[in-house]
Amino acid sequence: MAISERVKNALEGASWVRRMFEQGEELKKLYGEENVYDFSLGNPNLEPPASLKKALKALADEPIAGMHRYMPNNGYVETRKVIAQYLAEESGLPFEEKHVVMTVGAAGGLNVIFKALLDDGDEVIVPSPYFMEFKSYIENSRGQIRLVETNKDFSLNLKEIEKGFGEKTKVVLINSPNNPTGVVYKREALEELGTLLKKKSQEFKKTIYLITDEAYRRIVFDQVKLPIAFQYYPHTIRVTSHSKDLSLPGERIGYIAINPSCEEIDELIAAIVFANRTLGFVNAPALMQRLVAPLQRNSVNIREYEEKRDLFYNSLSSYGYNIVKPEGAFYLFPKAPIEDDVAFVKELQSKRILTVPGRGFGKNGYFRIAYAVDMKTIEKSLPGFKEVAEKFAMGKR
Amino acid sequence: MAISERVKNALEGASWVRRMFEQGEELKKLYGEENVYDFSLGNPNLEPPASLKKALKALADEPIAGMHRYMPNNGYVETRKVIAQYLAEESGLPFEEKHVVMTVGAAGGLNVIFKALLDDGDEVIVPSPYFMEFKSYIENSRGQIRLVETNKDFSLNLKEIEKGFGEKTKVVLINSPNNPTGVVYKREALEELGTLLKKKSQEFKKTIYLITDEAYRRIVFDQVKLPIAFQYYPHTIRVTSHSKDLSLPGERIGYIAINPSCEEIDELIAAIVFANRTLGFVNAPALMQRLVAPLQRNSVNIREYEEKRDLFYNSLSSYGYNIVKPEGAFYLFPKAPIEDDVAFVKELQSKRILTVPGRGFGKNGYFRIAYAVDMKTIEKSLPGFKEVAEKFAMGKR
Repeated sequence: MAISERVKNALEGASWVRRMFEQGEELKKLYGEENVYDFSLGNPNLEPPASLKKALKALADEPIAGMHRYMPNNGYVETRKVIAQYLAEESGLPFEEKHVVMTVGAAGGLNVIFKALLDDGDEVIVPSPYFMEFKSYIENSRGQIRLVETNKDFSLNLKEIEKGFGEKTKVVLINSPNNPTGVVYKREALEELGTLLKKKSQEFKKTIYLITDEAYRRIVFDQVKLPIAFQYYPHTIRVTSHSKDLSLPGERIGYIAINPSCEEIDELIAAIVFANRTLGFVNAPALMQRLVAPLQRNSVNIREYEEKRDLFYNSLSSYGYNIVKPEGAFYLFPKAPIEDDVAFVKELQSKRILTVPGRGFGKNGYFRIAYAVDMKTIEKSLPGFKEVAEKFAMGKR
Repeated sequence: MAISERVKNALEGASWVRRMFEQGEELKKLYGEENVYDFSLGNPNLEPPASLKKALKALADEPIAGMHRYMPNNGYVETRKVIAQYLAEESGLPFEEKHVVMTVGAAGGLNVIFKALLDDGDEVIVPSPYFMEFKSYIENSRGQIRLVETNKDFSLNLKEIEKGFGEKTKVVLINSPNNPTGVVYKREALEELGTLLKKKSQEFKKTIYLITDEAYRRIVFDQVKLPIAFQYYPHTIRVTSHSKDLSLPGERIGYIAINPSCEEIDELIAAIVFANRTLGFVNAPALMQRLVAPLQRNSVNIREYEEKRDLFYNSLSSYGYNIVKPEGAFYLFPKAPIEDDVAFVKELQSKRILTVPGRGFGKNGYFRIAYAVDMKTIEKSLPGFKEVAEKFAMGKR
């Protein structure tokens, strides 16, 4: 065999994803791209804010000498200072530039943290449903994922998390606003999680880290205020990116923020910077580091996502779909009316609607709708969703 | 312990690098940055070519809708097409866009390839002296580095490479023009290496891959024409970047080119694209993919590097330094007059000259000079090099 056995197995395991993707591509060829309603990818349709375009133009018009060269592996000090100041104001904690490490997106950041923290076989507790790439990220650094159930409304179930702990537990990883559910974890849940982590760190006589993937942090609705996990547990590391708030996913720009209260923090930072370098990221893209620095309080128009959520959630609910109302991100995670989510997703495909089965997120019997698309696409898809609901008599249950 | 044991060991092992770096920083504080001659980093001082700046300005003035969004994990098809065409013309081989995968620099590309190819304990043969990050890249994917000696002039020693083969050998990795020696491998050596790889693949009944790190490919002197490894062995994968030829190291833009003759090529490409995604790179930075596409035949003014090589090589040789004349990249790798390269590098530090001991490249008794700096810095450093040479009576040996 030519390729790595581990990768070969992973490719085979995900072959249904490929098949569904290929079926979607077939549909697009048959009916034309505009007549297929593609909700399968979380690829923001909004353009970056005007402030970003202006900043790019300013730099292109008057380039700064050396602006494409290597900088320290943790990123420009100027960028890290601005972000640290933003974090300090947000959290009331003494963030300095050394607590910020610029990364190649949040995906890069998570790989860097796991490399820095995990020894062989260390376990990472992840509430499910979850973004399945987490499993690869953890295993890249020879860790093990340990999935724990969430409540029916996808909120954190502290009892299940507690049951997930063992001798090998090193990290709890949460993702809020959540992909795939759109759920936002409440302040009380984070408080309880902080208390649990303190207790378990004592019990197992080691530091257990809380890693919060907050890539969708700025995309919240209904005046929800996202709690700040840093405030409830000292050993908290936030990973985020500007892929969603500034609509820059292709540019791979994000950062890691390390709670100033983390123990042995200088060693921890050194390990993170080392991992950023040796995993081959080397540094976050230079030009983007400059562009995003002054835009920490900017974002795309979140109301556009909220309007889409409203239309989609209200319409599907009225057809009989059972959905937890999401308060953030740009996903809906409805229950399928039959156990076999792949079969149900195929039903939607017959209406030229592309979604992802729940098993792609560790949860059979559900499916994910990514609605970072034009409003028109949503509107045109609704009759198809309705017909499928009627076929399964979903409103009558 | 908080951090990963593996990372902790690596940090401790490299602590002399940190000490030397800190001593260099001390010198800069004491004497002013302009009075310290820093040859420790391969960070190109040249600005990108005007064509790149123009392309950036054009895109900033008239942004393309969706130009910062996700694209397929292997990169824009338009960019890959242009690069494939360039490779086809260069090699005479039938490169198509599917044979090119855009990556986060060459460092990202190497990590991706090792992830795609290596099983636990698989060995990668690397001629030494070598760029030490290779060891991390290989170990990230649970492989083992197997160092083999080069000849006295740092050319490939085929006998040593042959001795390095064993049951676990999966890859031979070469780097030409070489970091740290600046040596360019000749056509004959690559031919012989191809023959050896065919023989060993048969002997061990599996495909052994040749990976060529050609990050410095365009930086060659004396009208040297770099041979094309693809032509001498079918299972060859090239990794390169635009960090050096277009002076964009901070932007992390590179690519992997897979020989169209590789066996089971579709599976191999799928594994590489999968690794690119799941290692957290996701895709190469979007904006840079667009900018570099039309610049495949452009580069910074290589003559500037050649002039620096000439001045540095001729001057140091005349003082008595023993140096293999480099034909590419922007490094010199002279022999130290004493076995203890760290001690010798400290001697140079006393003249406010910063270099890297050979042991940082697996070769005690040598030191590396990175001369991608202003000509003035080189000129001002020469008296210091001369004084140290006199102290060790280097001209008299």
